[in-house]
Amino acid sequence: MSLTVQDIGEQGLLKRVQAFCPQAIVGDDAAVLPTEPDQSIVITSDVLVDGVHFSDRTTPPESSGWRAIAANLSDLAAMGASPLGITVGLGLPKTTPVAWVERLYQGMSECLAQYGGAIVGGDLCRSPVITLAITAFGQVNPDCVIQRSTAQPGDAIFVTGYHGSSRAGLEMLLNSDTAPERAALIRAHQYPTPRFDIPQVTRCVSGMDSSDGLADAVLQICRMSKVGARLDRALIPIDPALQQWVSAEKAMDWALYGGEDFELVLTLPMEQAKLWVEQVKGSAIVGEITSDLAVQLIDSSGDFSDRALSLEQGFQHFRA
Amino acid sequence: MSLTVQDIGEQGLLKRVQAFCPQAIVGDDAAVLPTEPDQSIVITSDVLVDGVHFSDRTTPPESSGWRAIAANLSDLAAMGASPLGITVGLGLPKTTPVAWVERLYQGMSECLAQYGGAIVGGDLCRSPVITLAITAFGQVNPDCVIQRSTAQPGDAIFVTGYHGSSRAGLEMLLNSDTAPERAALIRAHQYPTPRFDIPQVTRCVSGMDSSDGLADAVLQICRMSKVGARLDRALIPIDPALQQWVSAEKAMDWALYGGEDFELVLTLPMEQAKLWVEQVKGSAIVGEITSDLAVQLIDSSGDFSDRALSLEQGFQHFRA
Repeated sequence: MSLTVQDIGEQGLLKRVQAFCPQAIVGDDAAVLPTEPDQSIVITSDVLVDGVHFSDRTTPPESSGWRAIAANLSDLAAMGASPLGITVGLGLPKTTPVAWVERLYQGMSECLAQYGGAIVGGDLCRSPVITLAITAFGQVNPDCVIQRSTAQPGDAIFVTGYHGSSRAGLEMLLNSDTAPERAALIRAHQYPTPRFDIPQVTRCVSGMDSSDGLADAVLQICRMSKVGARLDRALIPIDPALQQWVSAEKAMDWALYGGEDFELVLTLPMEQAKLWVEQVKGSAIVGEITSDLAVQLIDSSGDFSDRALSLEQGFQHFRA
Repeated sequence: MSLTVQDIGEQGLLKRVQAFCPQAIVGDDAAVLPTEPDQSIVITSDVLVDGVHFSDRTTPPESSGWRAIAANLSDLAAMGASPLGITVGLGLPKTTPVAWVERLYQGMSECLAQYGGAIVGGDLCRSPVITLAITAFGQVNPDCVIQRSTAQPGDAIFVTGYHGSSRAGLEMLLNSDTAPERAALIRAHQYPTPRFDIPQVTRCVSGMDSSDGLADAVLQICRMSKVGARLDRALIPIDPALQQWVSAEKAMDWALYGGEDFELVLTLPMEQAKLWVEQVKGSAIVGEITSDLAVQLIDSSGDFSDRALSLEQGFQHFRA
């Protein structure tokens, strides 16, 4: 029988998880952190529910913790911000093994150690379902904020890496024990990388992350910037392991709508975009912003006919 | 049939709740907020679960929203900070009425309108149980932080108001339709007041809020400051309506362990404490800090014998 949170109580559990926090900051009603002058603070938040957003079937607790942090840090990266810290709210059934909780915190800590920030606060409570609420905050030079609303017609649209890999990794974990080339795709699903490793961008860059899929990102940027876009399916970077595994149509569907790749989707005037893409291995120009408001998927290779993209095809939490 | 979140989907629900947020701040990957120079940021977080922390039986959705915000703002008040904003993570079953969600946000907005701060971000997701994750952040002059760890032997312990009222209000809502003088106690439970309305305190004030009960607050301050305390039960302010309703022993039990009164429990040298208490209606000196590490409940009126206080008698989430 493994030790459960019921066995050690709230105070016992609190002691164990505080081992993952900087001791000088936690333990009071709230955490106090200095900020640098001339920086704005940036805040983002996610709620993740066992069986909806994570599951022991596809992500061990270390991975669930890593993914929760990576998703929130990715939102900071998508604002041009650097991480300061996070709070962790955790709702747990009484029978949750203590070891599960410690492995979750281990995964969160490893992600923070790699990309910056610390666990500075949180809350533990009883819940009928494991629920993880993360709030991440960072800082940004207010002149260098990456916004969704500033894309201009004629801008190139470029991405920092492969799309569709996370969805493919999930599929392998759920359904296909015998798929070839499993490791990279499964890793893309279980341990995604927030993209802080990018060149300093100019103030006019626009963009967001692809947490809900590449199509969603382009559609959101177009809606907020009051522009349209033409995405070229021949240019969208997809891992060769994925291309070999499933049909071209399915791979493109996962790239557009799979989500959770946590790459950045950015726009800049074409010449600047070309220079940028040369500096970041794996990045690619995938289309352009148009003054026409439609968002089209075209195919410069000529194999597929054009089609319109819409949010309706994307992930809808309450209709799933 | 009332409209449910399933009927309008995530995007539809998002539009409705964004009506409660400042439009210039929400809609990107994360919220960006300026900070004032020479201020530190302060962060606190809570997770609240339907049936554990709130219930339509005792708190209408407006009250559940108000209480969630008040609890977090109270943590900011207990640090000497002023509110900047909050994020709201909300997990919902598909069948939740849209009107319930809007009433929850109405209550949150009313509390923020009264005490400061705005809803600057959040997350909506599907969950088998309604789950509300609040992170509040504020700012504080780093020289004026109220800490738990700086109480000194000889300090007076004082509180900003009645204790036990919230627990009494809950009891009335659950069990006693015929109790006299219901309104004030029920209001104390449903619409508690974070205590930002206090005089500017000197840098040496120590303290926290009484969210988990007066006994817990005193015990935490003593543990962090490595001191003891003597609390005088004859001095603890309890609403006369509560004193008339139940036995003295039960009223004291609720004052010490009931929790959720969200008053501040502070310590200062006796002369300064006396001046402070004169300025705040309803506040009272309730005891003193000792170098002896024990935390004792004494009775200057002589009716009850001394007893030791301990955390074990307080609220323990996972053992409830």
